[in-house]
Amino acid sequence: MGHQLVNWIADYRSRIEEFPVMSGVTPGEIRRRLPVAPPQQGEPFDQVIADLEQIILPGITHWNHPGFFAYFPSNTSLASVLGDLAASGLGAQAMNWQTSPAATELEEVVMDWLRQLLGLSAHFTGVIHDTASTATLCALLCARERSTKFSQNRGGLQAETAPLVVYASDQAHSSIEKAALLAGFGKENLRLIETDENFAMRVDRLREALTADLARGLRPCALVATTGTTASTALDPVAGMAELAQQHGLWLHVDAAMAGSAMILPECRWMWEGVEGADSIVLNPHKWLGAGFDLSAYFVRDTQHLIRVMSTNPSYLRTPYDTEVKNLRDWGIPMGRRFRALKLWFVIREQGVEKLQARLRRDLANAQLFMKLVDAAPHWERLAPVPLQTVCIRHVPEGVRSESELTAHNLRIANTLNKSGAAYLTPSLLKGKQMLRVSIGSEATEERHVQALWQALQAAVLSSARASAG
Amino acid sequence: MGHQLVNWIADYRSRIEEFPVMSGVTPGEIRRRLPVAPPQQGEPFDQVIADLEQIILPGITHWNHPGFFAYFPSNTSLASVLGDLAASGLGAQAMNWQTSPAATELEEVVMDWLRQLLGLSAHFTGVIHDTASTATLCALLCARERSTKFSQNRGGLQAETAPLVVYASDQAHSSIEKAALLAGFGKENLRLIETDENFAMRVDRLREALTADLARGLRPCALVATTGTTASTALDPVAGMAELAQQHGLWLHVDAAMAGSAMILPECRWMWEGVEGADSIVLNPHKWLGAGFDLSAYFVRDTQHLIRVMSTNPSYLRTPYDTEVKNLRDWGIPMGRRFRALKLWFVIREQGVEKLQARLRRDLANAQLFMKLVDAAPHWERLAPVPLQTVCIRHVPEGVRSESELTAHNLRIANTLNKSGAAYLTPSLLKGKQMLRVSIGSEATEERHVQALWQALQAAVLSSARASAG
Repeated sequence: MGHQLVNWIADYRSRIEEFPVMSGVTPGEIRRRLPVAPPQQGEPFDQVIADLEQIILPGITHWNHPGFFAYFPSNTSLASVLGDLAASGLGAQAMNWQTSPAATELEEVVMDWLRQLLGLSAHFTGVIHDTASTATLCALLCARERSTKFSQNRGGLQAETAPLVVYASDQAHSSIEKAALLAGFGKENLRLIETDENFAMRVDRLREALTADLARGLRPCALVATTGTTASTALDPVAGMAELAQQHGLWLHVDAAMAGSAMILPECRWMWEGVEGADSIVLNPHKWLGAGFDLSAYFVRDTQHLIRVMSTNPSYLRTPYDTEVKNLRDWGIPMGRRFRALKLWFVIREQGVEKLQARLRRDLANAQLFMKLVDAAPHWERLAPVPLQTVCIRHVPEGVRSESELTAHNLRIANTLNKSGAAYLTPSLLKGKQMLRVSIGSEATEERHVQALWQALQAAVLSSARASAG
Repeated sequence: MGHQLVNWIADYRSRIEEFPVMSGVTPGEIRRRLPVAPPQQGEPFDQVIADLEQIILPGITHWNHPGFFAYFPSNTSLASVLGDLAASGLGAQAMNWQTSPAATELEEVVMDWLRQLLGLSAHFTGVIHDTASTATLCALLCARERSTKFSQNRGGLQAETAPLVVYASDQAHSSIEKAALLAGFGKENLRLIETDENFAMRVDRLREALTADLARGLRPCALVATTGTTASTALDPVAGMAELAQQHGLWLHVDAAMAGSAMILPECRWMWEGVEGADSIVLNPHKWLGAGFDLSAYFVRDTQHLIRVMSTNPSYLRTPYDTEVKNLRDWGIPMGRRFRALKLWFVIREQGVEKLQARLRRDLANAQLFMKLVDAAPHWERLAPVPLQTVCIRHVPEGVRSESELTAHNLRIANTLNKSGAAYLTPSLLKGKQMLRVSIGSEATEERHVQALWQALQAAVLSSARASAG
């Protein structure tokens, strides 16, 4: 059955272009095709694979499709599929070193490979988390505990008097706000600082906010810099922020979820200049380095602090080796740990650094190409710089109409395109402007797919104009 | 290469009994066998599989080995390996309904299958989390926000005046303390209530603690009942606790991480009688139902409350279907979501309810058998009741010596046994007494393996006695 499924996956990947990128099913359609109760007796496995094809596949949005330009990419390279298969087959649960030493030590080695690839100094140590959301929550919890000198071991955050404050830009990802809220800071103590014309944090505004908060008796605690914002891949000035962080004793967390992968290219490292001043950094190899979801890399300077915040040490988890080894259960929120390092190890070994780099350079070049197509075309507007692989655009038809008409027009374009099945992109807002957000980076996306997207957009424009006229 | 790896896994599983259960490598041994830097060029995949066999396998502790009696089991049934392979191959990221409707809807269906299997009413809705640690953190965050009427949307927990208090038993899992600390309650506001002679929470002591805290002006907030504690699978009196929870407006969270799976057996449901009074429940199908790690099932009564605590709604995540569908990114901490429902679906369909039940009954019977062997043997002491599949014992040699000698003796037994490779169990403390904790429930463990463990323990006793004498 394993062989049958391997063939099915190979076949699926080879015919992936035949599928509409975005699933076209309607809400409840898949659910209604499934039995409401579990089977009493086991079923033949052939039937399970048949259902995979007939019921599940129509409800899949194909993230590995070359026409996937939505959100940020989430690559699952075939080498990663195999690495993950090895992890499932071994079935190791790596909460402690002893519960599978190879899982802990391979994670140490592969995270150090990644550190070297990114050009980070040996002051940073990496550990695998599931997602950037979770890693950022860890970062803010570590910040909270550093500022309060471990309030968790006393009366908790609720016993603190002067409120702690968190700072990020108004373009920061929603997971920053979520983490700040879950960590107990409260929305009133989250400052979303104004950004400049390139959607990067204004350090002058940040300084003003810090000064104002200090004057009110509040306690600035953590600062989140984004390298590659979600809306437009804007680059916060990490160096300037690091300086302020040091001056005020703030925890500096760098959210490079998407852009971090690009740092394996030396020519991209200017984008997070100053990163050595960070206390923690997160980036997602599951986005743009081929390691399948979920594999988020969290790098920290002070591992002992992380462990103090996250560790528990009950007798049933102690082993004779605890003083000599890392027990990675103490490096994050979940206690149990899947052997995730395998898939990144497989990908790096199968590709080699040079191919990983070549592939990212291809995507960056494709983004530049697409940008030039947009810039040269009449009635198209580009809304942000393109430092990475995301291009933010909108169509402004002859005789510009109101902002609401522009919004409706561009939403129609996105809808038409997404429903066509040829490509999938995310309509989104950039400082209130409705945009079409083209995020390039599926492993299968070549220049011809980017050209095809551009053609499909022209067709969608015509269709939207007709719909509006009709 | 996929075929080669499928063969390798099938081969590994078929010869698993040949391996020592617990890896015998020393700290750093695996790491030293791996290159310190990543390869510049890609490597032949044959070499990767060869390294899997030669470098990784010696560092694996075999959780699916029939001689695995440590911690709690973590089964990865072969059907689950295939389900997970399908998930990796599809590479879907299911944060929103639209990003793969089948992933969200299959999760709804399979979680509802599980709800029915467990005998829970339709008031509960299930969602997949990675681990019970994460689910419990969610539960305490939801409790915190209910008690404070959403302080997260104002000044946060740090703006609250009367401290919130969390209650659990002194046998509760370390993840409860970790969650309480991370959620900001603080160690001083966590009450670990005394347990009775069966290691279950004393409701009278709980009532006293509540009364005392109320008298001091504190605010009781959340109550965690454990169905199947980690040390001895003790059963807190859920019904009595639910009554107090209702009376005082406490959030009742039931941690049934291990024992929850047993509720697919109607004859076990007395163990969590009163569970319908819970606000949230967590159990781990990855422990004892064959769905490979990580797959934790979190059931809640008030889904709207969960969503209000966990949701963010930035423009780049909105889709046209948001009012009609579940976006599971808003049901937990991480935003991105792997298609985990597939592996549980595969397991339930391949096995059918009856085989799943038969297998659990086998393990329960094996635990009873082992208990009887212990009870009938001289110089062996059983330290706790055996409602489930875990048997807590210690060896008390002729002419009982001090507690510290007993501890050293039993640790030597555990060490000898674990190093022998024949079996692996976790030495642990039960209210200060050193015990040998025998946790039965690997999918491959048959009666003969339990008999073999008993023989191996006798041999380890002799060896320990010799070591002590020598």
